[in-house]
Amino acid sequence: MTPKLVAGLEPPYYNVVFTSLRPEDLEDYAETSDRMEELVEKIPGYLGSDSARNPGGIGITVAYFRDLEAIDAWRLNSEHRDAKARGREEWYDSYSIHIAKVERSYSFERE
Amino acid sequence: MTPKLVAGLEPPYYNVVFTSLRPEDLEDYAETSDRMEELVEKIPGYLGSDSARNPGGIGITVAYFRDLEAIDAWRLNSEHRDAKARGREEWYDSYSIHIAKVERSYSFERE
Repeated sequence: MTPKLVAGLEPPYYNVVFTSLRPEDLEDYAETSDRMEELVEKIPGYLGSDSARNPGGIGITVAYFRDLEAIDAWRLNSEHRDAKARGREEWYDSYSIHIAKVERSYSFERE
Repeated sequence: MTPKLVAGLEPPYYNVVFTSLRPEDLEDYAETSDRMEELVEKIPGYLGSDSARNPGGIGITVAYFRDLEAIDAWRLNSEHRDAKARGREEWYDSYSIHIAKVERSYSFERE
């Protein structure tokens, strides 16, 4: 399966940049991560996401939402809150979150 | 060397999310990428960046800037423009750019 990027959308919309550092091969991490993906896709106003991780290093996920209401709905989801608490207790060495309103976007695709 | 994340900063500030797909092991890519990092660090208002790439898959770079003027200075840099043109001609299968104003940010670090 060829991965597909979230393309530039019509502004304004929001993105949430989540960067993290964590050890590799953590217990239950992959299952929880898959479950979070399944859940966020049900949030009205969720527009997609991209993720990448350097083996053993920095991971970046960027999720796109139509507005702050959609981000709040995801933030307040109870399973998501439980997963975040577990992330702080068990999985992540550090993380940062940046919530931002997209003002301009561009996409390029080779013909 | 332990990588260090760009932490949440005092809003408002801007980020530029650059997601891309490209084949592995491209000619001159690493040198150009290093050179771009060297150059962007000289832009007044540049605040740092994080990058991650899934082996053979999606790459994400998030660069942080104080304001749109700093982003424009970087966008108009002539060596950067040449590198972007080469990226479209030779390196990338596809890419997207999202320029956004950060409204909220958080950081977590394990004690």
